[in-house]
Amino acid sequence: MKSHKEEVASAPAKETLAEGKFIKLSKIGNWEFAERNNAGGAVVIVAITKKGKLLMTEQYRVPVQARVIEMPAGLVGDIPGSEDEAWAVAAQRELLEETGYSAKKMKHLTSGPVSAGFGNETMSMFLAKGIEKTEKGGGVEGEDIVVHEVPLKRVPAWLRKKQRAGVLVDPKVYACLYFALESEGA
Amino acid sequence: MKSHKEEVASAPAKETLAEGKFIKLSKIGNWEFAERNNAGGAVVIVAITKKGKLLMTEQYRVPVQARVIEMPAGLVGDIPGSEDEAWAVAAQRELLEETGYSAKKMKHLTSGPVSAGFGNETMSMFLAKGIEKTEKGGGVEGEDIVVHEVPLKRVPAWLRKKQRAGVLVDPKVYACLYFALESEGA
Repeated sequence: MKSHKEEVASAPAKETLAEGKFIKLSKIGNWEFAERNNAGGAVVIVAITKKGKLLMTEQYRVPVQARVIEMPAGLVGDIPGSEDEAWAVAAQRELLEETGYSAKKMKHLTSGPVSAGFGNETMSMFLAKGIEKTEKGGGVEGEDIVVHEVPLKRVPAWLRKKQRAGVLVDPKVYACLYFALESEGA
Repeated sequence: MKSHKEEVASAPAKETLAEGKFIKLSKIGNWEFAERNNAGGAVVIVAITKKGKLLMTEQYRVPVQARVIEMPAGLVGDIPGSEDEAWAVAAQRELLEETGYSAKKMKHLTSGPVSAGFGNETMSMFLAKGIEKTEKGGGVEGEDIVVHEVPLKRVPAWLRKKQRAGVLVDPKVYACLYFALESEGA
């Protein structure tokens, strides 16, 4: 039987192939993947207004060089001094920054790897409870986020219309749609 | 009015910060992101058996160093000589390799960026039509994929049970669950 020490010694170690300011390229054995330097993970927020409308964001995304429909979302712990920010608190902050809606509570829905073969980033999805428009939204400095409010049942047709107009749609929107429909008992 | 040439000249160019064998680190302006070198994108497959069970995969993923529940999925055009492989054909190939199920047809569901702030990878989701078990499955050489067949309505509870046991769940599974329920008229 191998001792614990031997087992650890025989597992391939993680190498850093290259380190950018925000992202690094890592390798374990033959497997290459990407990591963020400055964030604990991402939060994604399912927020439904009192009138049954789902909040979605639209913004230009540099990596894909196109406008993208996404859920309100953001990084956890990427603000210097707030690296230990709780995930639910980050979800409340991001929802407010991006959409101008305050949430009384955040209910955890699920957590998991964004793209388990490509990177080690984890995301957590939250359902915002008791939301109310209290600010302007649109994101922080350098962000230019358009907020859409779409009746839940019309979301799939609305997304297809956006795609026909050349706007990309993050497939995670459909995961949030699953949770939104479940929460509304639809 | 700017000429086309001036406009192109004023847009920030893409720099390659580092290049691995499979992934590279790129930068446009101040935005860093990750790219794959060898693939056109990823296909994700929603496959439901005649008995109404959803096919899901479980495998160890190096970047997150854990077992992960995902949908049958794979890269498009990562096989030398097949770089132009059609996305629906790649979906049929990946479903067969991973699960042992052949599909008569693949219906396109949606396409979009996997993580628009982090990388430029695109994924397409397909609904497999007329599936039949014809091979063993489990993946190609070097892969060790366990296939799960779970009744559609029991999927959410089954996923939570897996998570309690320490297995990670890719949140995209819930996007596929949305499409699976929709296709079954549930």
